[in-house]
Order: sequence, then C-alpha cells, then structure tokens
Amino acid sequence: MSKSIKLAILGLGTVGTGVINLINDNLDELKRRSGRDILITEVGTRRQRDDIDPTIIQSSDLMATAASDNVDIVIEVIGGTTLAKDVIMHAIKNGKHVVTANKALLAEHGNEIFAFAEEHNVHVAYEAAVAGGIPIIKVMREALAANRIDWLAGIINGTGNFIMTEMRDKGRPFADVLTEAQELGYAEADPTFDVEGIDAAHKLALLASIAFGIPLQFDKVYCEGITGITLQDVNYAEELGYRIKHLGFAVRRDGQGDGSGDTSAAGIELRVHPTLIPQNALLANVNGVKNAVLVNSHPLGQTLYCGDGAGAGATASAVMADVMDLVRVLGSIDSNNESTNGHHVPHLAFIPEQLSDTPILRAEQMITGYYLRVHAHDNPGVLADITRILSDAGINIDAILQKPAHKLGQVPVIILTLPVIESQMNLAIEKIEKLDTITDKVVRIRLDELA
Amino acid sequence: MSKSIKLAILGLGTVGTGVINLINDNLDELKRRSGRDILITEVGTRRQRDDIDPTIIQSSDLMATAASDNVDIVIEVIGGTTLAKDVIMHAIKNGKHVVTANKALLAEHGNEIFAFAEEHNVHVAYEAAVAGGIPIIKVMREALAANRIDWLAGIINGTGNFIMTEMRDKGRPFADVLTEAQELGYAEADPTFDVEGIDAAHKLALLASIAFGIPLQFDKVYCEGITGITLQDVNYAEELGYRIKHLGFAVRRDGQGDGSGDTSAAGIELRVHPTLIPQNALLANVNGVKNAVLVNSHPLGQTLYCGDGAGAGATASAVMADVMDLVRVLGSIDSNNESTNGHHVPHLAFIPEQLSDTPILRAEQMITGYYLRVHAHDNPGVLADITRILSDAGINIDAILQKPAHKLGQVPVIILTLPVIESQMNLAIEKIEKLDTITDKVVRIRLDELA
Repeated sequence: MSKSIKLAILGLGTVGTGVINLINDNLDELKRRSGRDILITEVGTRRQRDDIDPTIIQSSDLMATAASDNVDIVIEVIGGTTLAKDVIMHAIKNGKHVVTANKALLAEHGNEIFAFAEEHNVHVAYEAAVAGGIPIIKVMREALAANRIDWLAGIINGTGNFIMTEMRDKGRPFADVLTEAQELGYAEADPTFDVEGIDAAHKLALLASIAFGIPLQFDKVYCEGITGITLQDVNYAEELGYRIKHLGFAVRRDGQGDGSGDTSAAGIELRVHPTLIPQNALLANVNGVKNAVLVNSHPLGQTLYCGDGAGAGATASAVMADVMDLVRVLGSIDSNNESTNGHHVPHLAFIPEQLSDTPILRAEQMITGYYLRVHAHDNPGVLADITRILSDAGINIDAILQKPAHKLGQVPVIILTLPVIESQMNLAIEKIEKLDTITDKVVRIRLDELA
Repeated sequence: MSKSIKLAILGLGTVGTGVINLINDNLDELKRRSGRDILITEVGTRRQRDDIDPTIIQSSDLMATAASDNVDIVIEVIGGTTLAKDVIMHAIKNGKHVVTANKALLAEHGNEIFAFAEEHNVHVAYEAAVAGGIPIIKVMREALAANRIDWLAGIINGTGNFIMTEMRDKGRPFADVLTEAQELGYAEADPTFDVEGIDAAHKLALLASIAFGIPLQFDKVYCEGITGITLQDVNYAEELGYRIKHLGFAVRRDGQGDGSGDTSAAGIELRVHPTLIPQNALLANVNGVKNAVLVNSHPLGQTLYCGDGAGAGATASAVMADVMDLVRVLGSIDSNNESTNGHHVPHLAFIPEQLSDTPILRAEQMITGYYLRVHAHDNPGVLADITRILSDAGINIDAILQKPAHKLGQVPVIILTLPVIESQMNLAIEKIEKLDTITDKVVRIRLDELA
C-alpha cells in the first residue's frame, strides 16, 4: 500500500467525534477504495480527551496543528467565523488541503478563502457545508457539469423542516414545536439562524455560486424565516392541494425588459422563504429533519437529492467523502505533483477567471406565485374589489377559497396567484389594504409549482 | 485556454444526437467549467448525415475512428454487445479513454473491459449506463466513498415504472399499458428486456459491484419481471398501505448460520422483482418513467437520488459528465501524465486487488417479506389452516385482509408477512397449496419496508 494519508481534526464536538468514529468503523472500506492507509495523526482540542487513541497527538494549539509537518489534510469542524478562519488560512499557507463543514464561514468569506487556496495550489473541500450528508456539492460541481442549471429549490435547514412537518402533521403551533426541537437537540438555544432562515441563506449562497458560476454573495440573499407561519395558513394550503415548506431558491432569469415597471429583469434570484408547493411533489413529502435539493437543468431536467442534512454520521460521511476525493480524485495529495494544475474541479465549479458578474436581483424584481389571505367584512362587493385590483395589476388568479364568516362578520379570502413580479404584487397589496372592507394586513406567502 | 479536448462519438442514434445537441447548447458552460475547449472531431456512423457540422469527420469505419490520432475520448453509444465491445477494446488498446452508456455490455463483459483499461492506463466511464441522468455511479463511487453500504433499492427501469404507475393511477391492465408504452416509444417492439427485468438486472449488477466491491456477476442476479402483476394485486396492496414497484435490490447479509434450514447465510442478495413498499415512502411516489435509487449506508443512513432514467437529454448529460470528469477530475487526459496512477477512482469503486469474493446468495437463501394472495373455498377453517402452516414455518404475519366471497364461494385471503428466508416460504406455500380448501396457486409478491 502506498503512502498513508495523515489527517488533523480541529474541533472534537459532535462532528469531529463523528469523523473519528467513521474512520474506526469503516477503515477497511476506506483502504479498499483508496488503496491508502488513512490515519488521524493529530487533533486540535481545547480539553485533552482520554477516550481517544493514545497514538493521536492532542493539542490545544490549533494553529500549530494546522501547520504540522505530520499532516496532509486539515479537517476544520470548530465552527464559527473567527478562529476557524484563522486556522484555515494558516493551513492553506502551509500547503495543507482543507476540509470544512463551515457554511457560515464559506458563505461570508469563501471568495477570499478559495482565492488564497488557489494561490497556494491546495483545495478547500466543503461537501458537509450544505445539506449534510447529501452530496449536493459534488453532484452540482461534477455530475451536472455539462448542464446549464436553470434553477434549484432546496429544503436545506433540517430544523425548519422538522417544525413545518410537525405543524402540518400534528396541528401543533410554531412555538410549541420549536420548544420540542430544542429539547431534541435539533434547534439551538438561540434558534435565530434556523428559524429566521440565515442558515439556509448561507447554504443557498454556496449552491447558487456553483450553479451559475458567480462569486459568493451571501449579503444579497433575500431571507425570510418561518416564525410568521400559522396553522391557519398551513391548513388552507393543504385544502388547496399545497404544502408549506421552507425553501431556498436560486433562479436564473433571462428577463424580458429592464426590470422597470412590469417588465422582468435579467439576473439571478437568491431567496429563502416559506413556500407553497404542490402536495404531490416529492419535495413536499420530504419530512422531519431530512433535507432535499431539487435541481432543474438543461438538458437533464429535474433531479432530486434527499437525505440527512445534519447529525454526526451524515456530516462525517460528507467530510470523509472530501478526504477520499483529495486522495483519489483531485489527485493532488502529493504536494509536489504539479501536473494536476489547471485541470481540477474548481472551488465554485467554474474556473475563477470565468466567474460571471450576473446581477443578483432585488426583492422587488423577483417573480413568484403568491398565496394571499385577506380578511374582509362579509360584504358582497369585497371579492369583486380585490379581484379587480389584482386584475388591474396584471396579476392572474389561479384559485380562490372563500371560507364562511367565523367571527364578527369577517371572512378570510384565500387567493392563489400565478407568478408575478414582486413590485407589482406590492402595489396591489397596498391598494387592497386601503379598501374600507379590509380589516387586517394581507398575509402573503410565496408559491411555486416547481414546474 | 489550454489544449482542446477532442471527442469521437460512435453511433448517431438518439443518444449520440443528444450529445451533439448538448455540446451545441452548452459549450459556453462546458468551457467555463473546464477551462478547455471541447470539440467533436469525428463521428462514426453507418450513414453520412448532412445535418452535422461539416468540420466533423464522418466515418463508417468505427474501428478507425476509435483509434484516430485526432481523438482523446471515444464515446460509444452504438449499443449491443458485439461491435460495441470491439470498438471499445480497440479504443482502449490505442490509449483512448472511453465513455459508454452500454449497461448490457458492461454487465456482461465489464470485468474484462475494466481490466484491459487498467492495463492500458485509461478509464472507461459509464455514468449513463445506470439510471440515465441520475449521477448514481458518481454518488456511490465517490460521494459515499467513506460509507459502508448496507443495501440499495432502485427503480432502474423507466418503462417498468411507467407501466406500474399507469396500472395503479388509472386502473388499466398490464397489456393495455404496455401497448401504450410502445406507442410512446418508452418500450421497444420486443419489450422483453424491460418487462422481464433483464435491463434492470444489468444495471443492478453494476450498482452492486460498486456498492460492495465485488466483481460484476450479472449471471447471478435473481430476475423477475412485471408481466404477472394484476390489477387485483395492485389494488389490494394499496388497500393495505403499500404500492407495488419494480425494484432492483442489492443487500449485504451478515448471516446468522450456514444458510441451511432456517438459518440465514452470509453473502449478497442481488434481485430484481416487483415489490410492495410503503405508500408513504418517497420511492413509492416516484412515478412515470422516472428512476430513483435509495441507498442505505453507514454512517450516512438513507439517501435518495431521483430523476430521468432515459431519454436523449438525460443520457447526454451523464455522458458529458463523464467527459468533464476525464478532463477535470480523473486528471489523466494527458496520456503522458503518469502521476495519477494509483490514486484515481477505480472502475468498480474499490481498487481491483481489493475486490472481494463474497458469495452471491441463491434465491432460496434470500430474505424478504411477502404479500400472499390465497384463494380458498369459503370455509370457516381455512384461515386457521393457513396461519398454522405459516406459524409452523416460523413465518410472522403482519397483516391479513379477507375479502367477502365474490364467486362460487371462493374468498381471496391476503396475507402480509415479516421477512422470512425464501426456502421457508417455499415450504409453507407448498403445504398451503396442498390444502383441500385451496382452489388456486398462491400468488406471491415480495414486500420490503425499506427501513
């Protein structure tokens, strides 16, 4: 067997421990597939652990471990965007390949990190950063490499999907399910990143870059969480044949105008928000903490990838797939091997000089269908007023559901629309809310047929 | 831009034309991702085509094209196992990398072809051979490279899935749907390969080898088609919460004995057959001509991959993904680059000297749950007789459905069992069929909870 591969693991939390367990469990499989021995030589951890193989050097000096001569690949699973960034940059500078699961760090500083890695002729692999164990980075960078990607839609936050699933299946309100998710360890004590969509936005920024060949632009992702979703809307959606999921969308728009008024602009939509999708779509049936990504590309059409988006086993699987890639595929583990330069898989799927400056569209330029819930006095003219306003704005209605008045003569009217430019919808809603017969703010949730 | 990549396409049917169209449509994407120009320099075709770019050399001498100095990669999309084999071996001998969509050829002669390719230091890529556009070969060989694969279950024949979907959705009998599938071009004039499960068995042989690191053993795949499935069974299955799909299974069994009597044997099950699976499983909701593969591995757990399993666009996408891999990933497009030897992705996922001789289990050693339909005279003792026989054989019943007598006093009894060794089930059915009260052969369909 040829040269051993020496790994350093920085951070021994759930994921770091998962990687150690995976190597213990599957060492035979790893060797049979790679023809190499895979060794953890060092771990970086604040506290010494006595349950670790004593031949592995434990160090609290993470910078030293990241640069150690005894290490080929540095696995960063500390998390956060400060120390993690420092150790990764230090590892790169010292010619180490890096594997990381750190979506926040890459979404925010990936352009800088990848450029630094290319300068130093090493690779920063990040399969575990998006959708956990689902190999969506490899699929999009390599398997779909001959396709033009038109759009993707993903359930890329397991906590959010767990909450949406429980609300629908058991009729439990948001706050109640969130508490359970925290008890089960699915959600952090501070659930902001999950329920406000920030975690999903980090992942979406990465997916969009490798889909379209654009620099990482996390700050331009439109981001809406699930805190405002009520059981009432979950149930109306079901009644109309739809299901509400929290999805990230990256969509390429060719545009049919300059984006002013009611003309659509060319560019890319990056958005994370609750979305009504057809009940019978596979994506609508991905439940609990599972993640899934649906990619629509030419000429392949739609493909779906589904699995565990988090957890020690799934994340370790993705981390070690990256290690195996560095060993077998990227072919660059021998640092003196210059021959792979210029033909490897680029960090963001497209070669750096070919990244495009296609604009990211502003929220008001985006195009989606809508679910509207309008509360009005039970007045015979109200539906005519609303539909006239929508029609005047060029908004096509796909379905209407008017429920019987339930209190004080108020009736909820549910309207599903065909896709419309958001600025047009904003104007229409402004007008609807000014009607005398309207008693509340209009509730709006985006809708996508995934067609 | 560095050296161009020169392709030869052998065969200009649906898939060959699809590859040409893909390159025309997406050349800019291909260049942006690879940093290379991608050129078709030659095509091998029996008849000259006048709708092809005139700078492309057309030749009816396929052997000459496969060996041309003007070609880096040979794409074989002729089909069949005779001429296709000759041209592939000739291309390999002349140092060309090969991309093929030919499942029958690889399932039957892959061991020989891959060994020959390794001898000549070239790669034979075959993403398009299994599940069309779904990148299941890449996923299993690379993305799951750190996992121990326990089992996989796949809808890997689109024609069969179309027929099963139509039977269920529209209550149409098998023969009727088959005729439509032929009219739509989903099924061949001679549908044997699709409806008898042979095409699925070819693909399963490939999947099993890369899952477990075993040589290709197509001849040992247990193979059952869908020609015997009746609407009656489709409907009873639905009533009990299951759906019948035609699936390929590759299952690793650790065994708890030597396989004699009621002890289970260690080895691998390779089987293709109609199967009842839970209605709410995602796999049960993969409809029409779509394909999907569910993989259960440690530590990742279950992941599902779904998309178009056939058609010009999907197949061309997979073929060109292989080309992009040869350019970017396998890193061996420069034939004088010796440095990649020993660290590339092996043809069957595991390095050749590590392929294992784990036995393939015989049909009677396999373990599955069962759906049984028993027709009996409407006699009060019959259910007791049947359940006693099953119980004596150690077979656990999971559900029973007894329908009212519908003609001549016969009642169909539907029984779902927990997993049982097939030899035990054979014995039990033999006994049941000997009961005086039983009027017909017992209908048996396998059942899997996909748990």
